[in-house]
Amino acid sequence: MNIQIPKTEQKRVVVVGAGFGGINVVKRLLKLNFQVVLIDKNNYHTFQPLLYQVATAGLEAGSIAFPVRRIFKRVKNFYFRMAEVLEVKPESNLLNTSIGELSYDYLVIATGGQTNFFDFDCDENDLMQLKSVPNAIDLRSYILQNFERALIAEKVDEQDQLMNIVIVGGGPTGVEMAGALGEMKKYVIPKDYPELNANRMHIYLVEMGNRLLSNMSEKSSKKAHQFLNELGVNVLTNISVKKYDGVQVFYGDNHILKTKTLIWTAGLKGVWINGIDESMKGPGGRIVVDEYNKLAKYDNVFAIGDASINITKNTPRGFPQVAPVAVQQGKLLADNISRMIKGVSLKPFIYTDKGTLATVGRNRAVADFKNLNFQGTIAWMLWLTVHIFTLVGFRNKLIVFTDWIYNYFTYDRALRVIIRPYKRKKDL
Amino acid sequence: MNIQIPKTEQKRVVVVGAGFGGINVVKRLLKLNFQVVLIDKNNYHTFQPLLYQVATAGLEAGSIAFPVRRIFKRVKNFYFRMAEVLEVKPESNLLNTSIGELSYDYLVIATGGQTNFFDFDCDENDLMQLKSVPNAIDLRSYILQNFERALIAEKVDEQDQLMNIVIVGGGPTGVEMAGALGEMKKYVIPKDYPELNANRMHIYLVEMGNRLLSNMSEKSSKKAHQFLNELGVNVLTNISVKKYDGVQVFYGDNHILKTKTLIWTAGLKGVWINGIDESMKGPGGRIVVDEYNKLAKYDNVFAIGDASINITKNTPRGFPQVAPVAVQQGKLLADNISRMIKGVSLKPFIYTDKGTLATVGRNRAVADFKNLNFQGTIAWMLWLTVHIFTLVGFRNKLIVFTDWIYNYFTYDRALRVIIRPYKRKKDL
Repeated sequence: MNIQIPKTEQKRVVVVGAGFGGINVVKRLLKLNFQVVLIDKNNYHTFQPLLYQVATAGLEAGSIAFPVRRIFKRVKNFYFRMAEVLEVKPESNLLNTSIGELSYDYLVIATGGQTNFFDFDCDENDLMQLKSVPNAIDLRSYILQNFERALIAEKVDEQDQLMNIVIVGGGPTGVEMAGALGEMKKYVIPKDYPELNANRMHIYLVEMGNRLLSNMSEKSSKKAHQFLNELGVNVLTNISVKKYDGVQVFYGDNHILKTKTLIWTAGLKGVWINGIDESMKGPGGRIVVDEYNKLAKYDNVFAIGDASINITKNTPRGFPQVAPVAVQQGKLLADNISRMIKGVSLKPFIYTDKGTLATVGRNRAVADFKNLNFQGTIAWMLWLTVHIFTLVGFRNKLIVFTDWIYNYFTYDRALRVIIRPYKRKKDL
Repeated sequence: MNIQIPKTEQKRVVVVGAGFGGINVVKRLLKLNFQVVLIDKNNYHTFQPLLYQVATAGLEAGSIAFPVRRIFKRVKNFYFRMAEVLEVKPESNLLNTSIGELSYDYLVIATGGQTNFFDFDCDENDLMQLKSVPNAIDLRSYILQNFERALIAEKVDEQDQLMNIVIVGGGPTGVEMAGALGEMKKYVIPKDYPELNANRMHIYLVEMGNRLLSNMSEKSSKKAHQFLNELGVNVLTNISVKKYDGVQVFYGDNHILKTKTLIWTAGLKGVWINGIDESMKGPGGRIVVDEYNKLAKYDNVFAIGDASINITKNTPRGFPQVAPVAVQQGKLLADNISRMIKGVSLKPFIYTDKGTLATVGRNRAVADFKNLNFQGTIAWMLWLTVHIFTLVGFRNKLIVFTDWIYNYFTYDRALRVIIRPYKRKKDL
C-alpha cells in the first residue's frame, strides 16, 4: 500500500514530526516552492513548555495542543498524514509508515526527544513523565486520585505514600513542575481537602548535580532554589536516586522516601527511526548531523531539534535541547535545501541564544540574558509574555491568557477534574 | 471498612450523584443545618447540555466539567467522597460503596439517566453516546480519526462508511448534535481536508416520530427541521431503525445506510441502585416517587431528577427529564426534609416550566414559552445567554464565552485534537 500524494514537478520533502522543528521547517519550505508532506502520530502540535500547567490543573489540554491541519489550512502543496513511522529505506528514498509507503526527494527527521530513564532500577510504567499531552492529563488525574484516596486511607504509611510527590531532575521541567505543585499545596489543597493536613504533603525535587537549572547562571539557580523553598518544596541537590519499587524511592545513600508518585524529568534521548545507519547514532540516541543538519551517510536526509546532535568544538555535547534551537534549525534547513537545488553554497547553523527563562510560581521566575540576569516579578511577567506569544494560534493565546489572569486573581487552579482515572499496573 | 465521617448532632443526608439535582439539593441542605455527604463516581459535575459542543470540537471538556470540591470549598458540614455506589440497605440505613459503608439518616438518590438502547439489535459497544465527558471526547476523537482514515481509504465504499454519520433520536441532543456536525461539514471539513469532497459527508438525523423536538411547539419543530436542512443535514422522520452491524444501519423499511458512526440519542433510562425494592421500579427503570419525591416503601429515601418518576394524572409519563425539573426538585426536597424534622407539613412538587430552548447552529435556535414561541437569531442569543449563566463557576462562564465569541467570528472549531484515539472493539 502506498500513501497517495500527487506527483508534481516540485521536489517532495517529507518531514517527520510536528514539534517546534517540524512545524518551522514546513512553514519555510512552503514559501520556497516545495511539495511538503508532514507526518506525525498525533494530529496536533504540542506546546511542551506548558505541559506542567496541564498536569497541575492550571490549563486545559486543548490550550497547548494545536491541530496541525489548522496551522496549514488552505495552504497549497501541503499534505498531512497522521501515521506512525516504521522505517526509512534511505537507499531507495522510501519511508515506511503504519498507513503505507511514501517516497521522498528529501527527508527531514524532526521526531524530538523522549524520556531517558538511563539505568534507573525500576519498572518504567511506575514512573510519571511529562513529555506528551496524555502524560500531562494522566499526571493530573493521578495526583487528584491520590488525594481522594489519601482521604480514605486507614494507615498513616499509606497516606504518606499517596500525598508525597518526588520529582527527579532539576532542569526547567522539574523546577517548574515542583513550583506548580508547591502552589497547589499552598493554595488549593487546604481548600479542597480540609479533612487532610496539607503540611503532610511533601514535595521533593531531587537533583544529582550541585545546583538546579545547570544551564542557567549561578544566581538564577540559587534564586530558583530559594523560590522553591518559599513554596514549601524540599530541594535536594547532590543526591542521586538508584531504585524505585513503586512505593519507595531509594537514594544513592540508601535513604528511603515513600511515594506512589515519582515524576521523572531527569533525561532525554532522541527518538530514533529504524533504517537509519547505526553509525549515525550519537550520544543519547540522537542522530549525528553536520553543521547543515545533514546526516553524513546520506545526501538527502536531515535531522533537526532534539532528535539530532551536532558535535563541534564549541558544542561538545551538542546544542541545548530546547525549542529555539529546533525552530532556528528548521528555518535554516528549509533555506539550505532550496540552496542545494540551486547549487548555491549552504549556510552552516549558528545558534542565536536569545536568553533563558524558567518560572517557579507567581511572581517568581528567573531570566538569563547575555549580559544580564534578573529574578522575580519582572522575570515572571516576561516569562508569561514570551509564552503567550509563542503559543500557536489566536484562540490558544486568548484562552491561556484568560486562564492565567483567572489563576492569578483567584489563586485557583480550576481544572481539577479526573476525566479518565489513571492506573499504574501496580495499582490495578 | 467504613467511610470515616464524623458523627455529629446534625442529621446526616447522603446524596448520590453530583448532577443538577444532586448539586442543588446539597446547596440548599447546607443552609438548613444538616451534615451532607455527597457521593459521585466522578470528582466533577457535568454540564450535560453542552456535551455535544465538546464532541464537535467547539468547547474543551474542562469548560463543562466543574470539580465538586470547588463548588463546596470552605463549606462546613460538607463531605465529598469519590466512589461507586454498590448497594443500599434501606432496612439498616446503610449505603455500601466501592470505598466502604456509610450510614445515613436520609438518602437522596440523584443518579440521573443513562442511555437506553431499548431492543435495538446491535452490539452496544459499536454505538456512540453523549451522556458523559469521556463519551464526548471519544466521539470527537472518533469523528476526526475517521476523516484521517477516509483520506487514506482505497475503496469508495470504505470512505462512505467513514464520512457518513447517523444520529438516531430527534430530541434536543440529536438536533443539537446534528446541527453542530452540519456546521463542521460546512465550515471546517473543506478547510481541513481539501483532499476530500465535503459533499460526500452525509449527516442523517433519524426520528421515529413524525417530527423533531416532540416536546416543543409544532412551529419550533418545523423550524428546527428547516434549519437542519439549511446546514446540509438529512432529516428523516417517521423512520425507525432496527439493526446495526457496525458498518450498516438497517431501517424499519429494510433500507440500508453505510456508516461507522452511529450516535444514539434516542432513549434514556434511570440509573438504578441495587437494594431498592424492585416494586419501586417504574417506566424506563426510573424510581417511582410521590409528590414529595419520596419512595413509598421507605420513610427516609428519596429520588429526584432523571432517576425518578412521579406519575400523576397530569404527568402520566412523569415530568420531562430535563435539568430544571431536577434543580427544582432538589431545592424543594431539601426544604421538605427540614420540614419533616420539624413536623411541619410538606409541600408537594409543582414544576414551573420556564420554557424550552434548543439550538441548531449559529443564529439558528428555537424557543418555546407559555404564550410565545420564536425562532432564529433572537432565540439563539437567548440560548447562549441562558447557557452561559447556568454554567457552574466564573472561570467556565468566562472561557465558554470567549470560545463562543471566537467560534462566532472565525467560523472555526478550534479543538480538533485527537488526544486519545478511540477504538471500537470491532476496529481493533
